Amino acid sequence: MIEIPSRKQVLEAHNRIEPFVHRTPVLSSRLINEIIGATVFFKCENFQKAGAFKIRGATNAILQLSDVQKEKGVVTHSSGNFAQALALAAQTLGVKSYIVMPTTAPQVKKDGVIGYGGEIIECQPTLEAREDTAKMVGQRHKATFIHPSNDIDVILGQGTACLELLTEQPDLEVIFSPVGGGGLIAGTALSAHHLTSRCKTIGGEPFAVDDAYRSLKSGIIQSNESTETLADGLKTQLGDQNFPIIQKYVERIIRVEESEIVAAMRLIWERLKIVVEPSAAVALAALTKRKREFQNQRIGIIISGGNVDLNHLPFSG
Amino acid sequence: MIEIPSRKQVLEAHNRIEPFVHRTPVLSSRLINEIIGATVFFKCENFQKAGAFKIRGATNAILQLSDVQKEKGVVTHSSGNFAQALALAAQTLGVKSYIVMPTTAPQVKKDGVIGYGGEIIECQPTLEAREDTAKMVGQRHKATFIHPSNDIDVILGQGTACLELLTEQPDLEVIFSPVGGGGLIAGTALSAHHLTSRCKTIGGEPFAVDDAYRSLKSGIIQSNESTETLADGLKTQLGDQNFPIIQKYVERIIRVEESEIVAAMRLIWERLKIVVEPSAAVALAALTKRKREFQNQRIGIIISGGNVDLNHLPFSG
Repeated sequence: MIEIPSRKQVLEAHNRIEPFVHRTPVLSSRLINEIIGATVFFKCENFQKAGAFKIRGATNAILQLSDVQKEKGVVTHSSGNFAQALALAAQTLGVKSYIVMPTTAPQVKKDGVIGYGGEIIECQPTLEAREDTAKMVGQRHKATFIHPSNDIDVILGQGTACLELLTEQPDLEVIFSPVGGGGLIAGTALSAHHLTSRCKTIGGEPFAVDDAYRSLKSGIIQSNESTETLADGLKTQLGDQNFPIIQKYVERIIRVEESEIVAAMRLIWERLKIVVEPSAAVALAALTKRKREFQNQRIGIIISGGNVDLNHLPFSG
Repeated sequence: MIEIPSRKQVLEAHNRIEPFVHRTPVLSSRLINEIIGATVFFKCENFQKAGAFKIRGATNAILQLSDVQKEKGVVTHSSGNFAQALALAAQTLGVKSYIVMPTTAPQVKKDGVIGYGGEIIECQPTLEAREDTAKMVGQRHKATFIHPSNDIDVILGQGTACLELLTEQPDLEVIFSPVGGGGLIAGTALSAHHLTSRCKTIGGEPFAVDDAYRSLKSGIIQSNESTETLADGLKTQLGDQNFPIIQKYVERIIRVEESEIVAAMRLIWERLKIVVEPSAAVALAALTKRKREFQNQRIGIIISGGNVDLNHLPFSG
């Protein structure tokens, strides 16, 4: 059983990373409030460096390394936002980064990693190949492996978005976060637990990849048989570091249909005038689906990121 | 010849409307700065009420009316953003609004006007029909006509976006604004002239509707033979109130191709993570086209609005 991080650790993580990340804005929309029947505050990590919250956890994890470890560099495997986030965080902190990416990763994401000074090592597009390659690269360079979501320092870093939201809006009654690998929602729930007396954390998850929902029900980490969802940031499964935190502090997970994700994404684009990725819209989709239970409440939403492919948007006439 | 508004009038307009409009953020992007080779500040009126700068001019014009005039209401003709802006400004100030819209106006825009309490009067989709209908409606209700762009109080209101930008960034050397009916760029140039000692104003205009460019060249207001541009907010022509201000204070107008507008729009969406309309991207397109002339300068860009139809975006694979 892991030791649940303390309030002090949550606050320290924020002090540690604050000089290196953006303080992202909190936005709201009168019309969205009317539609939901509540007061909703969006913490906009789409405006974060590298376009997503992931830089927070990456930065916190690197800053916890010893000088010797920093000299040897860091390694991770990721096909998405964490690859770019770790490369950028490492570059900012003067640390070498090795990024294991599947051969199928989009060129734009590889270009992003290279632009941030990361060294890409390609592997076959399976979880096993990723893990093996990362282990091999780590051994070869004595680089420290940093997991995208199943790492206490990463979890604490991701929770700083919620901490900032609660600093601006201390009276929130509930915070919605998308659930993917579990790092963001575990960090969010930790911050909400330690910084407020009653603010709940609720997850939003696509039906198509509802492993976290099933994990909470069964008490054992589940995986997904297929990964057919627009919310490509939410395909990964929970891990042994974040699952106990999620079990303890996440009230529940609300599952949503793909069409509900697109509708929530459209609402955010049209009303908040911001570009967010499908994964980021899942939290609002979950709130919208169960809005009757949250009438007149003060609600926070973690907008996880804004990295979308404008050539392949899910809107149509 | 009109009398050019004074510095005092510019400042008074801002004080007048400030309680009724959003103070929109000023954003920047490291990558866009690298691409341009300058430091660029975006004044984001896409986050303004009703999604565009137009609420500023509409609010200023209504607030200048006498109590008797306010009781009778206001009327305008517009197929686009000004229709919604005037309806919302009127609603906020407790004034009745009559909005003349062509039968061809999109339902979503009509719904917007109705949502803000405006009364729609439909007309044929010609400038003549619009003007005649607006005159008739004005006479019938004794309502005051407010032109979307060719009205000194509207111009002064639109200029308050530039005033706010210069308050945050007083050392700008040049400000780029899109040119449509001329209200925004005339107000921008007035503010830049009165509030700084040297900040220039430059317009961006699509080649397809380059009436303002030709008007400045010839000294006589020109119109457009065709209006085939993505930048649907820029199809209208200058008027006798804003043209003298533009002649005096706008340094020049840079024309851009449609493909350059799409490229600038994509850059804004991808890097600033904000939703902006094609018209709003024309200013950055103009700067990008002539960037060699602006190396290492401090540059402002007025992002005019964010009202786009997500079902018909110009991006493609």
